[in-house]
Amino acid sequence: MLHDMFDAAMLQSIRPIVDLALAEDLGTGDVTSASVIPADAVSEGFFLAKAHGVLAGMPVVSLVLHRVDPRLHLVLLTEEGARVTAGQKLAEVSGPTRSLLTAERTALNFLQRMSGIATATARYVEAVRGTNAHIVDTRKTAPGHRVLDKYAVRMGGGSNHRFNLSDGVLIKDNHVAAMGGVEQAIQAARANAPHTLKIEAEVTTVRMAEEAVAAGADIILLDKMSFDEMRACVRIAAGKALTEASGGVTLDRVRAIAECGVDLISIGALTHSVTGLDISLEL
Amino acid sequence: MLHDMFDAAMLQSIRPIVDLALAEDLGTGDVTSASVIPADAVSEGFFLAKAHGVLAGMPVVSLVLHRVDPRLHLVLLTEEGARVTAGQKLAEVSGPTRSLLTAERTALNFLQRMSGIATATARYVEAVRGTNAHIVDTRKTAPGHRVLDKYAVRMGGGSNHRFNLSDGVLIKDNHVAAMGGVEQAIQAARANAPHTLKIEAEVTTVRMAEEAVAAGADIILLDKMSFDEMRACVRIAAGKALTEASGGVTLDRVRAIAECGVDLISIGALTHSVTGLDISLEL
Amino acid sequence: MLHDMFDAAMLQSIRPIVDLALAEDLGTGDVTSASVIPADAVSEGFFLAKAHGVLAGMPVVSLVLHRVDPRLHLVLLTEEGARVTAGQKLAEVSGPTRSLLTAERTALNFLQRMSGIATATARYVEAVRGTNAHIVDTRKTAPGHRVLDKYAVRMGGGSNHRFNLSDGVLIKDNHVAAMGGVEQAIQAARANAPHTLKIEAEVTTVRMAEEAVAAGADIILLDKMSFDEMRACVRIAAGKALTEASGGVTLDRVRAIAECGVDLISIGALTHSVTGLDISLEL
Amino acid sequence: MLHDMFDAAMLQSIRPIVDLALAEDLGTGDVTSASVIPADAVSEGFFLAKAHGVLAGMPVVSLVLHRVDPRLHLVLLTEEGARVTAGQKLAEVSGPTRSLLTAERTALNFLQRMSGIATATARYVEAVRGTNAHIVDTRKTAPGHRVLDKYAVRMGGGSNHRFNLSDGVLIKDNHVAAMGGVEQAIQAARANAPHTLKIEAEVTTVRMAEEAVAAGADIILLDKMSFDEMRACVRIAAGKALTEASGGVTLDRVRAIAECGVDLISIGALTHSVTGLDISLEL
Amino acid sequence: MLHDMFDAAMLQSIRPIVDLALAEDLGTGDVTSASVIPADAVSEGFFLAKAHGVLAGMPVVSLVLHRVDPRLHLVLLTEEGARVTAGQKLAEVSGPTRSLLTAERTALNFLQRMSGIATATARYVEAVRGTNAHIVDTRKTAPGHRVLDKYAVRMGGGSNHRFNLSDGVLIKDNHVAAMGGVEQAIQAARANAPHTLKIEAEVTTVRMAEEAVAAGADIILLDKMSFDEMRACVRIAAGKALTEASGGVTLDRVRAIAECGVDLISIGALTHSVTGLDISLEL
Amino acid sequence: MLHDMFDAAMLQSIRPIVDLALAEDLGTGDVTSASVIPADAVSEGFFLAKAHGVLAGMPVVSLVLHRVDPRLHLVLLTEEGARVTAGQKLAEVSGPTRSLLTAERTALNFLQRMSGIATATARYVEAVRGTNAHIVDTRKTAPGHRVLDKYAVRMGGGSNHRFNLSDGVLIKDNHVAAMGGVEQAIQAARANAPHTLKIEAEVTTVRMAEEAVAAGADIILLDKMSFDEMRACVRIAAGKALTEASGGVTLDRVRAIAECGVDLISIGALTHSVTGLDISLEL
Repeated sequence: MLHDMFDAAMLQSIRPIVDLALAEDLGTGDVTSASVIPADAVSEGFFLAKAHGVLAGMPVVSLVLHRVDPRLHLVLLTEEGARVTAGQKLAEVSGPTRSLLTAERTALNFLQRMSGIATATARYVEAVRGTNAHIVDTRKTAPGHRVLDKYAVRMGGGSNHRFNLSDGVLIKDNHVAAMGGVEQAIQAARANAPHTLKIEAEVTTVRMAEEAVAAGADIILLDKMSFDEMRACVRIAAGKALTEASGGVTLDRVRAIAECGVDLISIGALTHSVTGLDISLEL
Repeated sequence: MLHDMFDAAMLQSIRPIVDLALAEDLGTGDVTSASVIPADAVSEGFFLAKAHGVLAGMPVVSLVLHRVDPRLHLVLLTEEGARVTAGQKLAEVSGPTRSLLTAERTALNFLQRMSGIATATARYVEAVRGTNAHIVDTRKTAPGHRVLDKYAVRMGGGSNHRFNLSDGVLIKDNHVAAMGGVEQAIQAARANAPHTLKIEAEVTTVRMAEEAVAAGADIILLDKMSFDEMRACVRIAAGKALTEASGGVTLDRVRAIAECGVDLISIGALTHSVTGLDISLEL
Repeated sequence: MLHDMFDAAMLQSIRPIVDLALAEDLGTGDVTSASVIPADAVSEGFFLAKAHGVLAGMPVVSLVLHRVDPRLHLVLLTEEGARVTAGQKLAEVSGPTRSLLTAERTALNFLQRMSGIATATARYVEAVRGTNAHIVDTRKTAPGHRVLDKYAVRMGGGSNHRFNLSDGVLIKDNHVAAMGGVEQAIQAARANAPHTLKIEAEVTTVRMAEEAVAAGADIILLDKMSFDEMRACVRIAAGKALTEASGGVTLDRVRAIAECGVDLISIGALTHSVTGLDISLEL
Repeated sequence: MLHDMFDAAMLQSIRPIVDLALAEDLGTGDVTSASVIPADAVSEGFFLAKAHGVLAGMPVVSLVLHRVDPRLHLVLLTEEGARVTAGQKLAEVSGPTRSLLTAERTALNFLQRMSGIATATARYVEAVRGTNAHIVDTRKTAPGHRVLDKYAVRMGGGSNHRFNLSDGVLIKDNHVAAMGGVEQAIQAARANAPHTLKIEAEVTTVRMAEEAVAAGADIILLDKMSFDEMRACVRIAAGKALTEASGGVTLDRVRAIAECGVDLISIGALTHSVTGLDISLEL
Repeated sequence: MLHDMFDAAMLQSIRPIVDLALAEDLGTGDVTSASVIPADAVSEGFFLAKAHGVLAGMPVVSLVLHRVDPRLHLVLLTEEGARVTAGQKLAEVSGPTRSLLTAERTALNFLQRMSGIATATARYVEAVRGTNAHIVDTRKTAPGHRVLDKYAVRMGGGSNHRFNLSDGVLIKDNHVAAMGGVEQAIQAARANAPHTLKIEAEVTTVRMAEEAVAAGADIILLDKMSFDEMRACVRIAAGKALTEASGGVTLDRVRAIAECGVDLISIGALTHSVTGLDISLEL
Repeated sequence: MLHDMFDAAMLQSIRPIVDLALAEDLGTGDVTSASVIPADAVSEGFFLAKAHGVLAGMPVVSLVLHRVDPRLHLVLLTEEGARVTAGQKLAEVSGPTRSLLTAERTALNFLQRMSGIATATARYVEAVRGTNAHIVDTRKTAPGHRVLDKYAVRMGGGSNHRFNLSDGVLIKDNHVAAMGGVEQAIQAARANAPHTLKIEAEVTTVRMAEEAVAAGADIILLDKMSFDEMRACVRIAAGKALTEASGGVTLDRVRAIAECGVDLISIGALTHSVTGLDISLEL
């Protein structure tokens, strides 16, 4: 079932963090269950939402259960990315009781974090509905969780920015300083980086935006700009480059930012400040 | 310097998550820096707090820098666990510019999460100051971050509950159900678990608390009880067992809980719902 | 079948040593079998006890066979922990001949060591039958075999002491020296260690035992004491702390030690000086 | 210093078992030392032999110390393979106290096992002194310890048999049965195995020995033969093949076996039934 | 010195293949050197080019030497990417003889392959000198060598195509078939893939090229086209998309292809059919 | 099916390079397929030879497919080691389209390299048909590919030389220099190396060959000798040692070398300079 849920490549890439998580939680064994639960006991249970939100992470739950004990059986009752309500059963699970209790905490820790990210993302996506803007994530993820955190953003309706330092060129202040100007930095990047990658340049003023667009930036990142500045940059970039607003984005301000006409709004808090969605496993 | 900062055992145990974090962020290389920063450029910079809070994680920053490039040099300006204020320099860093930029995001992702946990913990610790209660964490940590999240709790002034399923016996509802009663479960645990571990039993009523203490529980976990119930349980356990309050603990309610006389108050939100402390690297 | 035999957490934790063992024994391949056994040959065989003892390790044999070739089939004829006699068939195995021969040595190396440990443990357990004392192991295990060696002790009827440095507090002479006294060391441990762990203190004199019990030690370890000293310590600890005898325990002396009234007798030789039980694989 | 002690290739190959050993013993940290030993305490100590024997394993001790904390400093007082007496100081060690206590058990577990193997080997080597026979080991080693166990045999004056299934051809009963005769099996091996490997054939009768030598075996393994049979086989093999006695070799019988004229005597008990040499770390 | 030679991220990413290479070549130790070279022997030597070519791989040699024995010392005499001639000394090396001999084969295997790739690349780069075309690689690399093979292409003067399936969108025939047309495929990619990646579409006819450019492809890959077709596609794409020629590129045909005006010429043979550059280590 | 194709030990040893290869090619996921191929699409296809050659590597293809997605199904149409012709279908494959496309490049990269090696080997084997000589490989393999490269040589009809530094003694010039002569080196090797390994000595003159054979070398390696020298060495070694020709072996010269009467001809180019066999996956 595992392979029905997962993209093969994603499954491959999340195994290390799942194994690390199980190793740290299992230690040398679950002394409580081994002491008080008969070895042949079996149980049934279900994952229960205890708050409203967006579900993300059941494929990881499935992998956790499978790594702990392939005899654990999971039946999904809800699709990934669906809105769930407090009291809703999300999935049924059955199998050896000891194994279920051994897997429980690790499974929930993944599920609550990922659903928390999806839930927060969905709020931002909802807030900009009807505008041109896409909500995107950043690299401000929990270390080791990059692929999972970004998957959760997609489940919440957001889009992904680059996954790491090698799948996108992003010229920031330090790069500009090193090359003596944003134009020089863009030219160096175009000459040296793989031709499959777009070149994004962070700009802090309208004038710098003009320079970057003129130098051929594919995307300009508008760092902590005022609404007026953003609107000006959107006009400059029109038809030539994508615009991405970044910095200090809150749920209160996000629609106003979107209405400036930017293509993308990136929000670090989606993944660096996560409130887990309350979900429990009831046996 | 690494080994001055770290407990040797902790250093050993965090290497896998640090390596995983670097692998996922570096990918096949930092295409931007490799394209626009000269190979021999060197820089100096500092870590800057941009909000008030409690610092935790500099030893991990040191390990990240060391793994990326041993030539990166870190000078601490603040002690772990210290209160920091917005605008305060936390540490100085110097070395090859490319390496610094390559390590930056991973270092900050660890530091912001850990300082966020320490900061939240410190608020709870402050709230119960003068009472008998210790603030303790749970196993609701970010997968792969168990040792780091719990270290951050200590830096915030909290104490650690068990690290994993093998270094403490915690009898919950499912265990009680499997054995037909909390007394039977405690007896089974005492007979089968290593004698070096204390036995903690979750109780949901005062009567169950009486039964658990009579059966010889070393600790009773009071799950979502009213203040009256907690006070009753504290009286029952006095001199015989430790009491731990758990469930629905908020900053508003925590002092009232502490004043019921419990020994420990465990709070999942310390680590499952973390707001990163805003810290930047300024070059 | 693997998961019927194993506790899920134990299975998780022994994979590294099993993989290491196979890697070191298989090298780049079994040149003999590849040269002289047809690829499609199949065989049947059985594990045969060639001496009297206690069986332990068949789940590991199952894992070894499974890792080498999932087509190898194992049928247990004896339960873990059972007494076996010379000439007794322990399990039947069948499958591709090359794979069987490839797995043979690694499977036997685990099985013989583990059954050897269980056999030795059972002798000590038998020797103290009828007394209050439990036979427990130590951390003097073969490096990499901690979980397996301790499992074998349980199969022999013994109990487990702490598994590692983090699941039990054990204050020894160096700790006492560092803190200036056993009382101070116990107080420091109580203040700083997780509350889920008991505190054990090593004592070498009756007076030190009194001090440790008064300071609230949960267990006192009586190091190489005379029978009189042990009896005195048992009286001091009665109802307040467990007592553990340690040091110089032999099969000749163990019953006399147990009759001093101690709760636990720990024996390093169970795992540091193992005589493998003679078991062969007959095809 | 590490690289002065170790052969580079051996150092490379033992890292996994050393890391596994540390991981299993350190768990999430040494709670006792962290609670009662000040972080900046330093200590000096020495490894002390508490019984007579042959020393083996100090390079592994050095690696263990280095992995735990590179500031730990080891000064050897005795050479590997040297005879040591009870009460003899083997090496001095100094450095941070916490790190020393953290490394102690793992270091000793390696050292005691390896010195135990060297000591037992030396007894057999001594017993055959003056004869033509070499004492050799088998693949009956503790899983994961192959390279270390065989190193210890060398330190005790013994020689090494093949390290794994790929660096030697050893035709046993099952191989003979599969090919319909020892001659056919030897021919198949000669045709198919790498030409750099010698071909050894296990024989159980004098007639089978004749057949094996005639078929071109480089070595014949005389399995549980009487003295007369062994002498006959030695005559048959003279100048054509090496002879190796195996099975039921005890310290009482080994000289008589050697005097039959065999070239090699292989002894599984050297590594499958090890009595650790008593060594302590005194701080 | 290691970190002077390497980009920090590249160093991080090549460790696994270097460790794998050493493990497979060292096995359980270098029996020859251990048997005939004294442990304290030291040697000096140099890497010697025995054919004309372009040097690539000395940083990997440095890493190999360092992993085997940090006391091995390497002094570079030639820069990476430099043309070398038969008989030229490339680098000097010194240190313990055993360690040098242990590292030799692995170091040379990397160096010869990488210099072979750089040498072949340089021939193609030379052949198109003066045209607009860049020589680029493919994903047809030796498994496990992706980062190294592509580094060698850069040292030969070539440029890198995408490193893996996640750092570039490349729409091929199967993708077009799945979506019912190249236009639909490009639209789906633009909607779903990260905005930091360019979209490249493989086209096999001029008409398909028109459709792809009209649909907004950033790059069109001209698969096995005639010179006339390529010229037509270059005109279509002018100012709107990059053009990449691919398929059947040989040293004889490459200049004619470049003169069609394409921006990029990708050549699988650079890395899938490598002739190692003849280099030896002379002691 | 995997275990029908593979020798169990070989399967065990190639997992690391297969996992490394998948990790480097999949990155954080196949962005193209995930964007344009429906998750539930399934496909059928076949591996197609596009040139004449010898097939090797289908078991590795099977492992790659299995690791990516166990639902991928492979049906072999050709045996390993068989000659194939351009246009011949080699195997059929079916399963989820996304998974197939994700696995395609890695599978082909292994298959093309291995079939290329087998094809080249077969040419040399054919060239010496009817002589006494065996074609053997060297340790000049692609790092990480040792077991695979040598398997491919066997599929092409060649034989394997030693796999690594521990499964054969090969005395070269540096060893001779260190011991002061080839005789001394051979004696040292015989005294110190495991008795299961043959001793091979590299000789550069007929006189050195005489000395080596007299000293008891099991194999003499004739390094870059003239035909006359080789013939002389063959006479010297007759009945006493095997002879191996090495250095400067080309397809043009190999028969003449074989006709000198040598037993073995080792050729580094078989694996250090591989031309991949052209094979594609057609869906």
